[in-house]
Amino acid sequence: MPNGRFIVFEGGEGAGKSTQARRLAQALAARGIGAVLTREPGGTPGAEAIRNLLLSTEGAGWGARAEALLFAAARADHVERLIRPALARGDWVICDRFIDSSRAYQGGGNGLSDAEVMTLHAIGSEGLLPDCTILLELPAEEAAARCAVRDQGQADRIGGRDAAYHARVAAAFAGFAQADPARFARVSALGTPEEVSARIEDVLASWMPPAC
Amino acid sequence: MPNGRFIVFEGGEGAGKSTQARRLAQALAARGIGAVLTREPGGTPGAEAIRNLLLSTEGAGWGARAEALLFAAARADHVERLIRPALARGDWVICDRFIDSSRAYQGGGNGLSDAEVMTLHAIGSEGLLPDCTILLELPAEEAAARCAVRDQGQADRIGGRDAAYHARVAAAFAGFAQADPARFARVSALGTPEEVSARIEDVLASWMPPAC
Repeated sequence: MPNGRFIVFEGGEGAGKSTQARRLAQALAARGIGAVLTREPGGTPGAEAIRNLLLSTEGAGWGARAEALLFAAARADHVERLIRPALARGDWVICDRFIDSSRAYQGGGNGLSDAEVMTLHAIGSEGLLPDCTILLELPAEEAAARCAVRDQGQADRIGGRDAAYHARVAAAFAGFAQADPARFARVSALGTPEEVSARIEDVLASWMPPAC
Repeated sequence: MPNGRFIVFEGGEGAGKSTQARRLAQALAARGIGAVLTREPGGTPGAEAIRNLLLSTEGAGWGARAEALLFAAARADHVERLIRPALARGDWVICDRFIDSSRAYQGGGNGLSDAEVMTLHAIGSEGLLPDCTILLELPAEEAAARCAVRDQGQADRIGGRDAAYHARVAAAFAGFAQADPARFARVSALGTPEEVSARIEDVLASWMPPAC
């Protein structure tokens, strides 16, 4: 039995990652492929407990270094307890955010270097990388507008920023994709969910059998 | 104003670390020296929240890699929010356990190498080391007997092991002390608390003014 494929959705807030992750899992199910749909931070009871610590706005929040270690700890639990076992039994794993979100948000001039973020990933998760990282890309103004509608003032500590913030995040992700084109597929997030899904299924076509 | 001194108590369970840390803080106060008494994991609200996650026995516990990252995250918060500010204002910091406990318990054949544990410390806490690490040493049988009396069956997940376990931990600490004699002071934990305190004050005599 072959290992399953590990597919990650990345991109800024409002790009439709969770919607497209869910739609891909449904498309795989329609083809008879077992797929585990998960997200970061979180995905296992331990990682969800760490997520609660991370996203809480109580107290003074976390310094950049403690925050990066907490994300790496949550990911280590998620990889060991859910992602690797699913791949080993032949399932696909569809994950909303993974290591590149840590690189974009905890690294990138936010206190840690990219090399430090990758070192934490090497120690915590033995450097596991996705088979394919779908980078959903959106103009910064569109991302800010979608987030404003979605969040209605309820944005958590990390979401809820202006267009300049979304542009910085998008530029960080684009840089990772340029540096590792074999692992990344850049997909426009403009249009309807159906249109975006069709682009994603084109990217993954060689791995997906026809729908039943 | 000179920086304060950073003194850490290390050693296995039952060696009297918390008792001796408290007694040293009292001895410093008697000499008019400001001292912050703290412990790991914990010492700040954020680090105590992580401590609660770590010591909880709910669910399947933590894998070795997630556990090591959580200890490093708690330490990063403790160093940034409490230890460095206290030292910078001239106070001494007396801490019950620090990086060498991570080396002994999370490293040392428990899934991570010593180099990995030290790399996490470099990233999380910029590699801060104590000015002096007091290693309280006890024969393994005596440590096991003291723990059995103290814990009365209430030992947490990390405590409550047999003499062979205590011997392995003691050997790990002894190895660190041999490799870095300038940072470590090995002190016998046998005898009364007063006798042990007298040995510790001898070690630190050159840094401590006479009692008022």
